[in-house]
Formats: sequence, structure tokens, C-alpha cells
Amino acid sequence: MTAAGGAQGGAESLSALLVNVREEHPLVQCITNAVTVNFVANVLLALDAAPAMVDMPGEAGACAAAASALLINLGTPNADSVRAMHEAVRAARETGKPWILDPVAVGSLPVRTALAGELLRERPTIVRGNASEIIALAGAGRGGRGVDSTAEAESALDAATRLTRVTGGAVAISGPTDIVTDGTCTLRLGNGHEYLTRVTGGGCALGASMAAFAGTGASALRAAAAATLAYTVAAEVAAVGAAGPGSFAAAFLDRLATLTPSALAAHQAPGPPGTGRGARRRE
Amino acid sequence: MTAAGGAQGGAESLSALLVNVREEHPLVQCITNAVTVNFVANVLLALDAAPAMVDMPGEAGACAAAASALLINLGTPNADSVRAMHEAVRAARETGKPWILDPVAVGSLPVRTALAGELLRERPTIVRGNASEIIALAGAGRGGRGVDSTAEAESALDAATRLTRVTGGAVAISGPTDIVTDGTCTLRLGNGHEYLTRVTGGGCALGASMAAFAGTGASALRAAAAATLAYTVAAEVAAVGAAGPGSFAAAFLDRLATLTPSALAAHQAPGPPGTGRGARRRE
Amino acid sequence: MTAAGGAQGGAESLSALLVNVREEHPLVQCITNAVTVNFVANVLLALDAAPAMVDMPGEAGACAAAASALLINLGTPNADSVRAMHEAVRAARETGKPWILDPVAVGSLPVRTALAGELLRERPTIVRGNASEIIALAGAGRGGRGVDSTAEAESALDAATRLTRVTGGAVAISGPTDIVTDGTCTLRLGNGHEYLTRVTGGGCALGASMAAFAGTGASALRAAAAATLAYTVAAEVAAVGAAGPGSFAAAFLDRLATLTPSALAAHQAPGPPGTGRGARRRE
Repeated sequence: MTAAGGAQGGAESLSALLVNVREEHPLVQCITNAVTVNFVANVLLALDAAPAMVDMPGEAGACAAAASALLINLGTPNADSVRAMHEAVRAARETGKPWILDPVAVGSLPVRTALAGELLRERPTIVRGNASEIIALAGAGRGGRGVDSTAEAESALDAATRLTRVTGGAVAISGPTDIVTDGTCTLRLGNGHEYLTRVTGGGCALGASMAAFAGTGASALRAAAAATLAYTVAAEVAAVGAAGPGSFAAAFLDRLATLTPSALAAHQAPGPPGTGRGARRRE
Repeated sequence: MTAAGGAQGGAESLSALLVNVREEHPLVQCITNAVTVNFVANVLLALDAAPAMVDMPGEAGACAAAASALLINLGTPNADSVRAMHEAVRAARETGKPWILDPVAVGSLPVRTALAGELLRERPTIVRGNASEIIALAGAGRGGRGVDSTAEAESALDAATRLTRVTGGAVAISGPTDIVTDGTCTLRLGNGHEYLTRVTGGGCALGASMAAFAGTGASALRAAAAATLAYTVAAEVAAVGAAGPGSFAAAFLDRLATLTPSALAAHQAPGPPGTGRGARRRE
Repeated sequence: MTAAGGAQGGAESLSALLVNVREEHPLVQCITNAVTVNFVANVLLALDAAPAMVDMPGEAGACAAAASALLINLGTPNADSVRAMHEAVRAARETGKPWILDPVAVGSLPVRTALAGELLRERPTIVRGNASEIIALAGAGRGGRGVDSTAEAESALDAATRLTRVTGGAVAISGPTDIVTDGTCTLRLGNGHEYLTRVTGGGCALGASMAAFAGTGASALRAAAAATLAYTVAAEVAAVGAAGPGSFAAAFLDRLATLTPSALAAHQAPGPPGTGRGARRRE
């Protein structure tokens, strides 16, 4: 429990991290799923990051060693991509690169549940999932229905905190209120829009965005929070003129590509009652 | 040959099935192709169904056992996904789940033609294809050029009827007029727009939509017809303001997400001359 | 160095090639990457070509023998797709079909670099890449950062010329000014928009477009130049009303689908100072 504000969790300082992504063009390697790989790449490009979707054994390690950050998403693993995941994680760790684990549908499907457990031991810099996935990954329950979350983010905070003790990094729980914690400091962010759940990849691309922010040298907690803030504010603005999920998806990429740190700070929404502004609450 | 109207084929009752999809959020497992998997997932989300693109051996069966319905699409099979298909179909059958077979490009390419024949013996609840594919699957001709249809839907009705005797389910033939038959009752639907053929996945996502409707407990014939009606009416409305296939694709998802049963009933187009309104014709 | 104008390089004659694609609907087989395969297929449909994304060993050769042209893109190779590439290239060569090689990220990643070298010996009709890739493929340097180009097109002209001596075909270097050469004749095209670099697949789909044009019987040089002209003019027009990369991508497909030869000729932009109009310059 620490006082609010200051350099670490403040909304303004989170907003400023966007400048680093825009200027440094971090190379983000993604070993991700076939369903959303196109959207994930386009989100990274909208952030001015450089996507590298390299998932072949024999290349994945070389790419991770050259990249600024690595995303491992378990949406549609196959024998080859699992080998590439291990190879890339090893290279990322050896070269001191941050890496993000997105344990899609863990707990409800057997192969990826075992795989996520193995990868967790490699201490991901950030773990991102919905409440069901975080709870399942912490061994505290079964998962939801695939990528559906069947639980509120708050219900997974204890599980998230336990995971941070294993990884030494941050854990991000996605939901109507997003929660990011490193076990010591916990941030809640109240932006976003329901449309993010009506476009496939809404979660996957958030994980990739966290990799982009982490790739600029931000701490795990700040990278996860700043990416969430940028991502959900862009969604909120994009939803205003959208007629449905199709026009929303295009507008979301437009807004993410034109988002500025000052717009970010201005649009930041209040968090839950009594907690002050979302991203500023600290515990 | 039975009288028109009544509970089974009537347009109003088909429209009402959309409510079930919206309220029950059927979990639809898709083992589908890499080209259109993103669009298929977004179409399912627009219908308020829950997509689960689980195509890994060792997980596919568990997913099918938990899902409401299963889609098998042969667009880009590979060694692993073929094993997953067999595993998922077995689990779907053992747990009494409806499953849809979309035999993409069957007849013109050798591996999938053999595979489609094997899968047909597992008695898919619904087979969906264009006329060339349905004719080829029934063993009555060679296929078209990939996903192109080189024949009108009507020309495949005899082949479709023969297929229903093998499967005991329904067969849907896509074309300017869509035909759905269970061998006893045949429905023709006259909605849709040419843009559906200018966006990749126009057929694949229709098959997935049929799975969503079948996943709510509708009969094979009614699920295939209701999905076709919702899908083609959304396309028709979306095409009105579209400047081309790119803006159409976004508008189509918007319209599908906001489509109501009453809008469905109101937009239903006449079928071929002399047959009355498309979805009402029965033979 | 030859005089400008005339049948081979003239802008009007390049524009007219679009008519052939619209009328002949060339069947374009693509063995391409999972990231952009959907966009590539939609670009081909917008050109009125017929995409066939057939990448399974045992089918790839049969498809290439039936297709009008073949695209091999090295974005995300895997063991199966590499076998399919060799099978398809062999069939294309045996049946006299043009084929396009897009050596994505060659030079920076080991597996595809070796693969690209093997495929180069099969004499692709057109090689398309950014400057870094062309330079790396010619053995003159290491590649850029994945799909990023770290060099201007002009800097790769010598490398491109050397490649044409190996292949006997054309080489296209993508950049703010696009260059196409067959070793004897070199064309520069000054159209396009920066948004093409903010949407994943901007380069991949250009390679596929070249396959569509080559599939109508145009020479390697003319197919590469005409595809570039149509593609970049559509991008330029689409960018006018776009609010960002998301709305641009949809508008680009719209514009490509409605592009006419006369609009093409009218929109053609000047090339670099002193060279006359882009597509007309010949050396």
C-alpha cells in the first residue's frame, strides 16, 4: 500500500510512454494465433511498433534475440509453434528481453493448460488474460468458455497476486474495469468499450500492445498499464461514431494510429467509486 | 410435398430463431481455414454466438464435447487439422452435437475430396457448399475452380437430395438463390448481394452461422434456412450504402450485429416467380 | 537506354492490362503467410481475379497446374508449406505458368534465407521485395528488420539487375518510388501512399496482384509495372478520405474494385524530377 500519484502510476506519466513507442518503433515478435494475427499486426502498426510474426522453429530464437519484446499467445498452438515458443522464450530471456504470455482459454483445454504451466516457469514479464484465465493459470479454478470471461476482473486479483510471486513481473486482468498488478502496486483502469468483446482479437492485440510498451524499456507494471490505457481510450473514442463491430474495428485502428499523449490524459475515465481516477489508484 | 406456412418453414418462425442465438450465445467450435478464420469468428460474434477456433489434436475433441455445435471447413486442411477434424467429429457425434461440413473446393483438389468423402460418412447435420461442390460431393461431377461456383444452385438440387439420404440431415446450396433441403422439404431464399462473392469468407461464414443456429436446437433444415435468411438479409441491407467490398465487409458485420427478427421478416425478398416469398416455398 | 513511350512501358498500355484481369478472372494460387492471407485474397477479389490459397502438399501441384499464376510468399513458412512451395513451383514451371517470389524478411532470418536461395534457382518470373530484401537476395547485404525496409528502392537497383540475370524475369523493388526492371528496361512509378506501410500485407498483396496480371499473359516487366500502377493509384485515391489505417484498408479495397483503366491513366503521378511521368521512364 503506497500513496497515489508520482512517477510510477500516474496517468500523465503513463500517457507519456506512448511517445516512446511512437519514436522507438519497437520490434515486437509475436507467436500468436491464426484467428487474430492480422488484427494484432495492424494494432502494432497503428502504435508505430514493428510487428514480426515469426513462428518457425529455427527462426523464432534469432528473431527474439533481435526483437525489442516478445508476445506468446496460446490461442491456436500447434506442434511447430510450440517448439518456436520455447525457442523464442529462451532467446528472449538470454538477451534480457521482456516477454508477454497470453494464456488464451487456459483451464478449459488440456494441451494449452499444460503448456501455459511450463511457460509460466520461464517467468513472463507480463501475463495478460481475462479473469477466468488468470484464475485457471494460478491453479485456483477451471477456465471459462474459451476466450469468454465468466468472472469479473476483481475476482481474479488474488490469483493475479499469486502469479506475480512466481514470475516477478506484472499480471493484467482484462474486463470492464482492467486491473494491473505487480503484487505490490495495483492499478485499475475504467476505459474501454463493449465493442472490444465483439471483435475477435480484442484481447490478443492488447497483449501485443503491452509487448510494444515493454519493448521501450518501461517496467512491467507501467508497460501493462500504459498499453491498457492507450488501447481502451482508443476504443472508447472509436465507439462513438461506430454503427457496429465492423465499423468499430476500422475506427479503432484509425484512433489508435492518431492517439496522442494529451488526448490520452484528457479521456481517462474515473475508476470505481471512491478510488479516484482509474489509473491513479494504487494499493 | 406439403402445404406452405406453419411452424416449420415460415419466414416469421425462421426469423424468430435469431432470438435464440442472441440469447443462448451458442459456443461454436470451428476447424476452418486460415484465409477466412478471422472473418468467420467476427461473424459469429456479430450473431452473439461464441466462437472457439480450436483445431489442435488433443483439444479438438474436448472442445467439441463442450460446444453447442461444430463447423468443419475444408478450405486449407493440413495434417494436424485433419486429425483434429476426425477427433472433433467423433466427440460431436458421441455427445449428440450438430455439426456442419463445408467441403470447400471438393472435386477439384485430391486430398480434400477424399477427406470430404470420409467425413460425409459421419453424417453431418448440414452440408453447405456451392453447386459445384455439392455436385462433386454427391459424386456426380468434378468441382468448380476452387471456391468459385461454376453452376447455379438449382442444378445441384438432385445431388443435394441424394446427399440427404446419406446424411439424414440438410444440405444447403449457396448461389444467387439459396436452396436448403432435407430431402423432403425444400426452401428457396432470394436475398443476398453479389458483394458476398467479392469478400473472401462469404461462404465460410455462412456455414459457421448455420452452426450457430443449429447449436440452439433448431432442426437441420430450419437452422440452415434461418442462418441463410439472417446472413443474406444483413448482406442486402449492408450493400445499400457500400462503396465497394471493403466498406461492405465492415457494414455487413454492423448489420448482422444489429439485425432484429422483425427487420428480418420485413426485408425478406420474393423468391423465383410463381413460388411466393423465398423462404416460404416448400416442396 | 531506349526512348520512352510505345507499347511496352507506356502508362496507357499498362492501364489497359487491367481490363484483361477484369475480364479473364485469372486463377491465382497463393502459398502465402498466415498474417496477411485474408487481405491478399480480398485484394485479388477486388481485382476480379480468383484467389486459390492452396498450400497443402499433395494439392499444391495440382492447383498450380490448373492456375493462371502462382505466388510464393515467405512470410511464415512451415515444414508443410515449404514442401507445397516446391511442389507448386515445379508444376508451374512444367506447365509454363508465371510465378512470383516474395522473399519476405530474407537476409534477417536463416530458414527463409536458405529457402529463398533455392527458390531463386527455379527462376521466378517476378521477384518482389523491398530494397533490403532484394539486396539480401542478391547476396549483397543483410536484410532489414523483418518486413521493414531500411533502404531506398534506388539503392537496390544494382542488386535487382543482378537478380534478373539469374532469373531471366523481372524484379520489383517496393518503396516510395517503386522500381521495376528486367535488366534491360527499368520503370519507376511514383504513386502510392504511406498508409500502405501502416496496413499489414501492403507488400504481400502487391506481389499477389503481380501474379494476377502475369496470369493474363503479360510479360514479367509489364505485369509487375501494371500491377504496381493499379495498386498504388488505388491506394492514393483511397487515402484521400481515410481517417487512419483502418478506414484506409476498407477504402483501398473499394477503390481497387472500382478502378478503371481511364482513372488509372488520369491519376498517374510524376516520377522523380527529370524522369518524366513515373511509369514512362525507361532506361
